[in-house]
Amino acid sequence: MPPAPGCRARDIGLACGSLPPGARNSIADVPGVRVGHHTLHGADVRTGVTAIVPHPGDLFRDKPVAAAEVLNGFGKSIGLMQVEELGQLETPILLTNTFSVGTCGNALIRHAIAGNPGIGRRTGTVNPVVCECNDGYLNDIQAMAVTEADALAALAAAGPDFALGAVGAGAGMSSFGFKGGIGTASRQVVLDGETHHLGVLLLANFGRAGDLRLPDGRRVGPSAPTAERGSVIVVLATDIPLDHRQLRRVIRRAGAGLAWAGSFWGNGSGDVFLGFTTANRVPHEPRTDLLPARMLAEPRIDTLFQAAAEATHEAVLDALYAADPTTGRAGHHRPSLRDTLGETR
Amino acid sequence: MPPAPGCRARDIGLACGSLPPGARNSIADVPGVRVGHHTLHGADVRTGVTAIVPHPGDLFRDKPVAAAEVLNGFGKSIGLMQVEELGQLETPILLTNTFSVGTCGNALIRHAIAGNPGIGRRTGTVNPVVCECNDGYLNDIQAMAVTEADALAALAAAGPDFALGAVGAGAGMSSFGFKGGIGTASRQVVLDGETHHLGVLLLANFGRAGDLRLPDGRRVGPSAPTAERGSVIVVLATDIPLDHRQLRRVIRRAGAGLAWAGSFWGNGSGDVFLGFTTANRVPHEPRTDLLPARMLAEPRIDTLFQAAAEATHEAVLDALYAADPTTGRAGHHRPSLRDTLGETR
Amino acid sequence: MPPAPGCRARDIGLACGSLPPGARNSIADVPGVRVGHHTLHGADVRTGVTAIVPHPGDLFRDKPVAAAEVLNGFGKSIGLMQVEELGQLETPILLTNTFSVGTCGNALIRHAIAGNPGIGRRTGTVNPVVCECNDGYLNDIQAMAVTEADALAALAAAGPDFALGAVGAGAGMSSFGFKGGIGTASRQVVLDGETHHLGVLLLANFGRAGDLRLPDGRRVGPSAPTAERGSVIVVLATDIPLDHRQLRRVIRRAGAGLAWAGSFWGNGSGDVFLGFTTANRVPHEPRTDLLPARMLAEPRIDTLFQAAAEATHEAVLDALYAADPTTGRAGHHRPSLRDTLGETR
Amino acid sequence: MPPAPGCRARDIGLACGSLPPGARNSIADVPGVRVGHHTLHGADVRTGVTAIVPHPGDLFRDKPVAAAEVLNGFGKSIGLMQVEELGQLETPILLTNTFSVGTCGNALIRHAIAGNPGIGRRTGTVNPVVCECNDGYLNDIQAMAVTEADALAALAAAGPDFALGAVGAGAGMSSFGFKGGIGTASRQVVLDGETHHLGVLLLANFGRAGDLRLPDGRRVGPSAPTAERGSVIVVLATDIPLDHRQLRRVIRRAGAGLAWAGSFWGNGSGDVFLGFTTANRVPHEPRTDLLPARMLAEPRIDTLFQAAAEATHEAVLDALYAADPTTGRAGHHRPSLRDTLGETR
Repeated sequence: MPPAPGCRARDIGLACGSLPPGARNSIADVPGVRVGHHTLHGADVRTGVTAIVPHPGDLFRDKPVAAAEVLNGFGKSIGLMQVEELGQLETPILLTNTFSVGTCGNALIRHAIAGNPGIGRRTGTVNPVVCECNDGYLNDIQAMAVTEADALAALAAAGPDFALGAVGAGAGMSSFGFKGGIGTASRQVVLDGETHHLGVLLLANFGRAGDLRLPDGRRVGPSAPTAERGSVIVVLATDIPLDHRQLRRVIRRAGAGLAWAGSFWGNGSGDVFLGFTTANRVPHEPRTDLLPARMLAEPRIDTLFQAAAEATHEAVLDALYAADPTTGRAGHHRPSLRDTLGETR
Repeated sequence: MPPAPGCRARDIGLACGSLPPGARNSIADVPGVRVGHHTLHGADVRTGVTAIVPHPGDLFRDKPVAAAEVLNGFGKSIGLMQVEELGQLETPILLTNTFSVGTCGNALIRHAIAGNPGIGRRTGTVNPVVCECNDGYLNDIQAMAVTEADALAALAAAGPDFALGAVGAGAGMSSFGFKGGIGTASRQVVLDGETHHLGVLLLANFGRAGDLRLPDGRRVGPSAPTAERGSVIVVLATDIPLDHRQLRRVIRRAGAGLAWAGSFWGNGSGDVFLGFTTANRVPHEPRTDLLPARMLAEPRIDTLFQAAAEATHEAVLDALYAADPTTGRAGHHRPSLRDTLGETR
Repeated sequence: MPPAPGCRARDIGLACGSLPPGARNSIADVPGVRVGHHTLHGADVRTGVTAIVPHPGDLFRDKPVAAAEVLNGFGKSIGLMQVEELGQLETPILLTNTFSVGTCGNALIRHAIAGNPGIGRRTGTVNPVVCECNDGYLNDIQAMAVTEADALAALAAAGPDFALGAVGAGAGMSSFGFKGGIGTASRQVVLDGETHHLGVLLLANFGRAGDLRLPDGRRVGPSAPTAERGSVIVVLATDIPLDHRQLRRVIRRAGAGLAWAGSFWGNGSGDVFLGFTTANRVPHEPRTDLLPARMLAEPRIDTLFQAAAEATHEAVLDALYAADPTTGRAGHHRPSLRDTLGETR
Repeated sequence: MPPAPGCRARDIGLACGSLPPGARNSIADVPGVRVGHHTLHGADVRTGVTAIVPHPGDLFRDKPVAAAEVLNGFGKSIGLMQVEELGQLETPILLTNTFSVGTCGNALIRHAIAGNPGIGRRTGTVNPVVCECNDGYLNDIQAMAVTEADALAALAAAGPDFALGAVGAGAGMSSFGFKGGIGTASRQVVLDGETHHLGVLLLANFGRAGDLRLPDGRRVGPSAPTAERGSVIVVLATDIPLDHRQLRRVIRRAGAGLAWAGSFWGNGSGDVFLGFTTANRVPHEPRTDLLPARMLAEPRIDTLFQAAAEATHEAVLDALYAADPTTGRAGHHRPSLRDTLGETR
């Protein structure tokens, strides 16, 4: 049963928490943030690439302040070490399957060089950021099917409106025994009288069957239990000015959102959070030695913590609600939460 | 309304999760672990000390492997830096209020010297471990009422059976708008055919009014909202042999249990976890250069993660269920969850 | 042989590195920073307290941005967990012996309450920061001789000019087999045409006899070898605007300075670094939700790294050069580097 | 001037420290450890791959305990996140240039699948570990010249004897203004009467011209100054049984060795350390829930700290001494330390 066009988890009563969502209830409520997908579908292949582009400018020259937090490091994401050291992003973020990280990284390097031919010659190198989950249950991950062209196609497709569920990097993912994939949500936060946004996009490939918890406390799941052998990537964007330390504190609260969805952050799950703010940026070639910045008054940060946790919880439900049931490699099948809810309601 | 003698949260249907509890459903299900309280009650004073003693031997000579994890570091606990570096405990753990940490640390130092007069002379110093929450709402924390004698009294009172709720360090704590305090829970884990235990004791002083979530998904709370300005200390004990890295992974899952209880780990809350295993110990003066140890096969660790999260969730409810309503400093009052549940059921 | 009045390590050729020092070659070259000592000397007691006051205002209301870095966590310092979480200081920093940390912490709490009676009542608590080394070789550390009054005396004595060597917290410390103690050094850094300062004050109680390295590469040391069972605390101050992440990167380079002095960061040494900037401050009660700040353009940070390492190296030599030979507990004796250099030159 | 066959830095008086080296003074003194190079040389290409194989068995089935430590995270290495979480290696370690990390990672994935066809199907995925430095000064790094076949060639070449200097991943590296590259050294440590080894292999691409320090304290360097825009990777192997925490403490001391060589860990340098022990291994499919292990008595760890620092310092000198002068991309040239020493001696 496909959802009504544009229908979201929230529309059928799966809203999480109390803070108001943005107009799109999406990471793209943060002005300038765009998302693109490229999906591969064929024989035993159910995989793809999802691109998150933090702002429309040249990311290498105008780097958003960023932070990473690893709740459970059983994963193979790349680029996070430098994000933590320098507190900045300099490429778009790509999401894909575990064995396509290297190829997507290569694509980001070539993409950056195309825009800045001095990279690796007149200036330093570039730090590609690629995060991953293991879609090997539905996808023939050994095929390493994603090409650099696929990664570029996801980048080229980026826009403020984008599909959810079993698309892009989410094509082959599983979550709580259901078909997983891409979900998003946002929250509005008013600061000094101005409305800001905090948005989350996640790649849901985590959670044991039967552990999923709805906002009303009900647990739902397919009958066949699964072990936790997945991952979840949470990308958080905001236009609230935060420094690296504050951003890291905020994205850590994605872990509470995952717990609210029913997870205890299983051993086999790479639970990785990556956040950036478009409101503090660092030039690649600063013209002065000291740079202005803004930060949040720390006593106000609780609202952002709540927003991050709520949006993460809802984005999980959103991903599962949007995802179509999928049959993939070796006839493996994941049902849709949407169908289960239809039955149980 | 006092609880029936020996009545626990679980007895009225507030059991969390699916793993079986130990015989006492307590941290003291881990053989050798003892807990003692000393409570101060007078004028505006509602505070105290709780001692967790990891094993009956000489802790300085026979140090349990330990780990610490700081989920939110807005707190003043002492001793954790060395626990992280050396992966071991060498004193009992004391819990108390924020401004009594120094005095309790002094007491642990003198207590250790009494047992090992060579400390600071023929051998190194000793690392006292004291964790704290701010009970300033109900307690006149400025009075710094706890003495070294009070700390020693808590140590002297340690045994396998101990009171819960508004006792010891929990005397003045608040949680989710209710009276908080001391809670405990345990889970059994069978490994290689043998039953082991993982137990949690926590000092609950966290959570906004209205955010508390019961196992069935209901939210309960007093009508007057509160800001998060507390803390929670989770002490985890086990007789499962783990190395420092594994122990740290396990105790991190206390954070999922706190989220299941309704928290998003607020800014003002020092969320600190400390774990030890009695099954791996390090001698102060080793007779050989290499020491035997045992560790868990990592694929089995999911059960411990689940046990840590479940026991933490239940220990929160246990603390709140056991705690009597309390009026303290300046007439400040916290109601009991027990009374609220009586009304709502 | 006492040094000529005002004579410093640099004056006899022990200058380290190439960057220019400030006018005092001291942490007090950072405007507003003051240092005070209180020394205890009697029977078997050789110990004391050293206070570093970051700025002349109310530290609780006007908190300097700060960071901590633990190179080797075999130590008992307090307050660092919250410094790392919130990136700020709210009390002066006290240095003392290992077993006087609790008492100095209590003194800082009472000192803060005296200035801000709402602490623990109308507002939150306060995070005292006390760092320590083990002076048990020369001092009867079991006596726990330091009182709260001693701590307050060190605070009261704080000024821009202060003694070096075997004074305050340095009274009983040992380093590289020599008498250790308090050293300081600073470096000038020009940014956007303006001169800034980066200064270091350290408490040297680390290093094996024979491992000390002078700037020209010579190694010097007393004949009797010692094990590493000490610690070193490095406090770094600057008036360069840095955010928490940058400050942490800078203070980490104190570790290079310690290595240049001959150390490999021995097991028994608590190597703890604490830095603050007076140029970014956070109000306790912000009037707006967003706050202005400034940060350094990251490509300029290498000069600060070099400054931190050079100043640390020189401050070690400065501490040892200034320290008088000392006989303490049980007739234990540490010679002065000054005398050894007199012999070898 | 080529070195005499088999001549090493130590042979001309550049030995560092006091602990005895192993028979080869190489990482391959640790029984079972092998190293292989594949070098690319053509037009503007000066790069390659170096493989470190921890033991002769199936690494995926029999995983050595491992740890990673990031001293300065301005780098693009992959696989370290999982090493830190799980404390184990499951592939060989490849070293290469910054833009060839993805391709080398892909090669390791396919290599692992070839040996274990169940990867990504019947069992989980695999975590390739690839570390890198930026050789863009001498090498046309934009060419991304390394292929998967090149990576496999390095693996195939692995043996206990291997070349040093400008070979493999070291072909295009620069260090302290000299030609950099691959260096190695080892130290013997006797424990419980048995001789063990601790060996280091490093890829030296760090250090400003003029900062290099020889063991006797002399500084040497080419006249033209360089900025720090490099990296250094230190791989440490040992047959001493250590747990993850201990291994991490030991490899951290590589930082002291780098400082002894003259570095202050510049901003632009990815200083990354990776260690493993062959004496503690973890099976992929454990047959029991609990596993035996051994650890070092912590008081003995100082010798390992010293060994790690000494071997790192010497391996830096070894790399520079062995490296031939090299002219590469755009006529860029790096002289050999060997020639400079010939002049200055």
